[in-house]
Amino acid sequence: MIEATETPALVLDIQRLNKNAARMAARIASCDVGLRPHMKTAKSIDVARAVLGADKGPITVSTLKEAEYFARAGFDDILYAVAIVPAKLDHVKRIQRETGARLLLTTDSVAAAEALVAAAGEGREALQCLIEIDCGEHRSGVAPASPALAEIAATLAAREGLLGGVMTHAGHSYGTDSIEAIADIAEIERRAAVDSAAMIRAAGLACPVVSIGSTPTILHARSLEGITEARCGIYMFWDLAQYSRGMCGLDDIAVSVLATVIGHNPQAGSMVIDAGALALSKDIGANRFMPDVGYGIVCDCATLQPIGDLRVANVHQEHGTVPVSDPALFSQLPIGKRVRILPNHACMTCAAYDRYHLTGAKAGMTWSRINGW
Amino acid sequence: MIEATETPALVLDIQRLNKNAARMAARIASCDVGLRPHMKTAKSIDVARAVLGADKGPITVSTLKEAEYFARAGFDDILYAVAIVPAKLDHVKRIQRETGARLLLTTDSVAAAEALVAAAGEGREALQCLIEIDCGEHRSGVAPASPALAEIAATLAAREGLLGGVMTHAGHSYGTDSIEAIADIAEIERRAAVDSAAMIRAAGLACPVVSIGSTPTILHARSLEGITEARCGIYMFWDLAQYSRGMCGLDDIAVSVLATVIGHNPQAGSMVIDAGALALSKDIGANRFMPDVGYGIVCDCATLQPIGDLRVANVHQEHGTVPVSDPALFSQLPIGKRVRILPNHACMTCAAYDRYHLTGAKAGMTWSRINGW
Repeated sequence: MIEATETPALVLDIQRLNKNAARMAARIASCDVGLRPHMKTAKSIDVARAVLGADKGPITVSTLKEAEYFARAGFDDILYAVAIVPAKLDHVKRIQRETGARLLLTTDSVAAAEALVAAAGEGREALQCLIEIDCGEHRSGVAPASPALAEIAATLAAREGLLGGVMTHAGHSYGTDSIEAIADIAEIERRAAVDSAAMIRAAGLACPVVSIGSTPTILHARSLEGITEARCGIYMFWDLAQYSRGMCGLDDIAVSVLATVIGHNPQAGSMVIDAGALALSKDIGANRFMPDVGYGIVCDCATLQPIGDLRVANVHQEHGTVPVSDPALFSQLPIGKRVRILPNHACMTCAAYDRYHLTGAKAGMTWSRINGW
Repeated sequence: MIEATETPALVLDIQRLNKNAARMAARIASCDVGLRPHMKTAKSIDVARAVLGADKGPITVSTLKEAEYFARAGFDDILYAVAIVPAKLDHVKRIQRETGARLLLTTDSVAAAEALVAAAGEGREALQCLIEIDCGEHRSGVAPASPALAEIAATLAAREGLLGGVMTHAGHSYGTDSIEAIADIAEIERRAAVDSAAMIRAAGLACPVVSIGSTPTILHARSLEGITEARCGIYMFWDLAQYSRGMCGLDDIAVSVLATVIGHNPQAGSMVIDAGALALSKDIGANRFMPDVGYGIVCDCATLQPIGDLRVANVHQEHGTVPVSDPALFSQLPIGKRVRILPNHACMTCAAYDRYHLTGAKAGMTWSRINGW
């Protein structure tokens, strides 16, 4: 029972997780694409099994440590969605050799493509790589259907089987809370991937994978024609950053931080909880669209419903400060009382914890997760 | 050798650590107070041994997990500097019982004090608690020499040995980069602790511990008269937050994040490294006094000297974006090149890693650290 768990602790509501997974599965089925969920938020074999209903994949990861963790658990089709560098190829090959899993790498440079060709390997060690396309975020990737794309494709084509396809990520879809604007970005994302695949195919090369990412664009795309797979991830848990953009309801958020009221400061009009900067993270991305949401919304421990307008407005390493405008809340929340905090950005918050405490029918159980590199 | 370490990774420069520890030891000796270093940044037995030259304490910690980790390694005098709640007392007693260590707890409420009295225990399990004083940060603690202080002291005094003294933390000393202002805050901090101890003693009670914290105030206090111990911690590692306030030099910062250039984006005028929001943290506290410092300063891997004006200006989970104004830097930093990032806030950055990679005479070695709760 989470009532007996020492705080702070990370709580996962299985009922909400299952509902979120089912909602995305239905959406994906209606779009006739594959789902390659991004496990960078959950980083948990147990969550992956719950979401996929299997332990084989396909999945997406953000670190080679995740890739190895999932590969050793049987997941055999893993896209590592951060640009590969030569020094990491030995690790990639070791994972493939020892587990039999296939890792799909990504690159957006000729330099890395040449290193991939030189190191391509055979059998279980054989490398496969997607070319990353920049569909508008301008963080990484080459321009869609560009000469740079053609050059990387031609470089990778020197080794049969090395060029696996293209991938892109509309990270800039997080920059708006307009469904129409997201749908527009989704179409640009789709076209970036599809046009790039067409260019590769026109050169006589295979482009089996045409992969796009981002939960908002997958949910609101008008069409995913020509796309083979979607790499969304935050939909499993949701968070205030997504809620603030209208992507989910508060009642969809499946992860929360169990915390304890450790101090009252009526003079300052605030109380203190034992979930601070490490337990919640310092990410305040949700505040762009919900300026007062701070580091999280304070909820009742049992019902996970917000308590008044309580927010974690300030954090120190192990202290969270909660302004209290209604003095009656001091008696409702005495020292020692437990609360649950809906996180601002789940990817960052979850990374502070090595396990999930489950609720509902699985109360008392924990699911593991990994962190670091 | 860090050259062979997969990135991102946390690097600790032992020479700088030793120099920083010696500097603070000399300062503390000149003030004639005890040093109870705060291990919430380092969270490492190895670092504690290096800083203290022993593995006994006294030390300060921010979580009971840290307390247990250090107690099991022999540290026997541990101040847990976050307000205690009744549900955590069983854990406190278990640590004391199984290791023989003495934990000093803290409280600022009559409610918690009453719970401490009820649970006080005997022998190895006997609890000891300091009263937290608010010296101006207004996060937690009772007002100095206030009726609230007297009431908590009288409550704790019901059990002999339970009242261990007073502690305060001038966290608001981080709010300025003026040495004069810090010295003024240090004097207020000192007076808050000393006046509170005097009030307790005037009531006929013992107040052996009179404890203050914060690296800036310890370094710049005009007097520490009446103080028994100082709980500074960030001085071991330093970071850009401290550098931005004039507390240290860039060459004093002992921790850095080893990262690899994974992408060039000349069109956008930026490059990408594999140290992002998780590897660096999203803390940008230093930016208050150094607005352009972003998430960290990009340095040469071997010399740890800044490369041009390179900063990590933006982060995603595993991507750090570095604006490049001088195109020559693209050839100086090709894809695959390693760099080291001086962190904005070391306490947050280090928390993403489970070990330190050492440099210099200890190159190739790692020191462990713990995280979480």
